[in-house]
Amino acid sequence: MEITLEQADKAIKAARDKAQELNLKMNIAIVDAGANLTAFARMDGAWLGSVDIAMRKARTARFFDMPTGDLGQASQPGGSLYNIEHSNGGLITFPGGIPIKDAGGEIIGAIGVSGSTVENDHTVAEAGVQAIS
Amino acid sequence: MEITLEQADKAIKAARDKAQELNLKMNIAIVDAGANLTAFARMDGAWLGSVDIAMRKARTARFFDMPTGDLGQASQPGGSLYNIEHSNGGLITFPGGIPIKDAGGEIIGAIGVSGSTVENDHTVAEAGVQAIS
Amino acid sequence: MEITLEQADKAIKAARDKAQELNLKMNIAIVDAGANLTAFARMDGAWLGSVDIAMRKARTARFFDMPTGDLGQASQPGGSLYNIEHSNGGLITFPGGIPIKDAGGEIIGAIGVSGSTVENDHTVAEAGVQAIS
Amino acid sequence: MEITLEQADKAIKAARDKAQELNLKMNIAIVDAGANLTAFARMDGAWLGSVDIAMRKARTARFFDMPTGDLGQASQPGGSLYNIEHSNGGLITFPGGIPIKDAGGEIIGAIGVSGSTVENDHTVAEAGVQAIS
Repeated sequence: MEITLEQADKAIKAARDKAQELNLKMNIAIVDAGANLTAFARMDGAWLGSVDIAMRKARTARFFDMPTGDLGQASQPGGSLYNIEHSNGGLITFPGGIPIKDAGGEIIGAIGVSGSTVENDHTVAEAGVQAIS
Repeated sequence: MEITLEQADKAIKAARDKAQELNLKMNIAIVDAGANLTAFARMDGAWLGSVDIAMRKARTARFFDMPTGDLGQASQPGGSLYNIEHSNGGLITFPGGIPIKDAGGEIIGAIGVSGSTVENDHTVAEAGVQAIS
Repeated sequence: MEITLEQADKAIKAARDKAQELNLKMNIAIVDAGANLTAFARMDGAWLGSVDIAMRKARTARFFDMPTGDLGQASQPGGSLYNIEHSNGGLITFPGGIPIKDAGGEIIGAIGVSGSTVENDHTVAEAGVQAIS
Repeated sequence: MEITLEQADKAIKAARDKAQELNLKMNIAIVDAGANLTAFARMDGAWLGSVDIAMRKARTARFFDMPTGDLGQASQPGGSLYNIEHSNGGLITFPGGIPIKDAGGEIIGAIGVSGSTVENDHTVAEAGVQAIS
C-alpha cells in the first residue's frame, strides 16, 4: 500500500495551513513507502537550505519507520547509533520527519518539514500526518 | 523576480491535467530563478527513475535559459557541447525541461517533466508553462 | 533583487584590504540570492583547502539566512540541529559566512571567508559585508 | 611558478572587457598550476549552469596542458580518449579552456570561460591569456 498523490497533496495542504497559522515559512516533503519523493512544496521565502533537509527528514523517517528525532537520540556521541548520519548519502536525525500510516496502521510513506525550530518543524509535520491518518 | 509557490502550484496543476487528458503518469518539478526546487509532484504509478530526471530537467532549463532539448541538439557526438551532461552534477539534455517567464518576459524559474516519451514530456511541460505565462 | 558583480567585486576588495591589514591570506567567495557563485578570490599563499570551505560558508549563510557560526551553535552534540552538516552536499557551520543585505534589508547574497582562525575569518567577512550594505 | 592573484585579476579583467565588447555575458574561472581555483567572476545575467562549466574548463586545460577543445577532438566516439569526461569528477572537453604560460613558457595556470557559443568562449578565454603572457 502506497501513499497516493491525492493523500500527499492533502498532507502538504494541512502542513501549509498549520505553518501559516503559526506564521512560519516551511519546506515540506512527502515520500512514499519506498522512500521515493512523492510531493514537495517550498513556501515563499522559506530557507533554501531546508529544501534538502525536508527531503532527508522524510526519507530518514521512512528508512527507520520512526520520527527523525527518535533516531537523533541514539546518534549522539557515545550513543548506540553514533554518527549514523553518514549512511544513505546523508541522514537528518533531528525532529521534523514522521512516518505516515494508513487507517490500518501500515506505514505508507513519511513527511519531512524544515524551516524553523525543530519543535515547529515537528508540529507542522504532525499536522500533515493527522490530515491523512 | 522569483516564481511564487502559488504560480508553481498552478503550473503543476495544468501539467497534471494535461497528463491525465493524454492518459500519462508524470513526474513534474518546478525550480525558481536560482534553480532551487520550489514544488514537485509524482502522479500515482509514474516511473520512480523520473523523479530525479524531472528535477534535473527543470534545473538544466534554468541553468542555460533554454528548453532542455535545444541543449541536447548540441551535446551529441561531434556537436559543439559534446558531453556537457558531465557538468553541474549531471544534466539532462533531452526534451521535457522549459524555462518559465513572467508577463514581462523575464525568466522566473523552470519546469521539468519526465515519465513518458520526450515528446509527451515536452507537451506536458509546455502546458505547465502556459498556465502562468 | 540579486547582488551584482560590481557589488561582489567591492565586497571582495574590502575583504582583501582587511586581510592585508591583518596580515592574513584568505579565500573569499560571494554567492547570490540563489546561493550560486558570483565571484571568488584566493590571495597568494592562502590555504588550498579553504577554497572549498569559503564557498560552502557563503552558501550555508544564504541557505539559512544567518551567520554560519550561529548555525554551528545549534549543530553541536546534544544541540537541536546536531549533524545538520550532512545536508546540502556538505555545510560548513563555523564562523566566516555572513548574509549580505541591500539598503532595504533584503538578503541579496552572502560572503564566505576561510584561511585563518574563525574569528579572523568572520572579521574579514564582516568587512566585505560592510562595503556594500 | 604559480599564477598570482594579481595576474588572475588581470586575466579576468581582460576577459570581461572582451566579453563586453562582444556583448556577451560570461563566467570566467582561473586555476593555478595545481588546478586549484584562484579567481572567478560571473557577469550579471550570465548562465547559472556555466559557473560549474567555466571552472571545469579551467581545470581540464591545466590537467592536460592543452586547450579543452583539443582534448574534445580525441574524446568522440571511436576516438582514442573516448569518454575521458568521466574522469576527475567530470571534465569539459569543448573549447573555452586554455593553459596560461609565463614569459618563459612555463604553465602557471589556466582559464576557463563559459556563457556563449564555444567559439565565443574560446575568444574570450584567449583575451584573458593574452593579458598576462
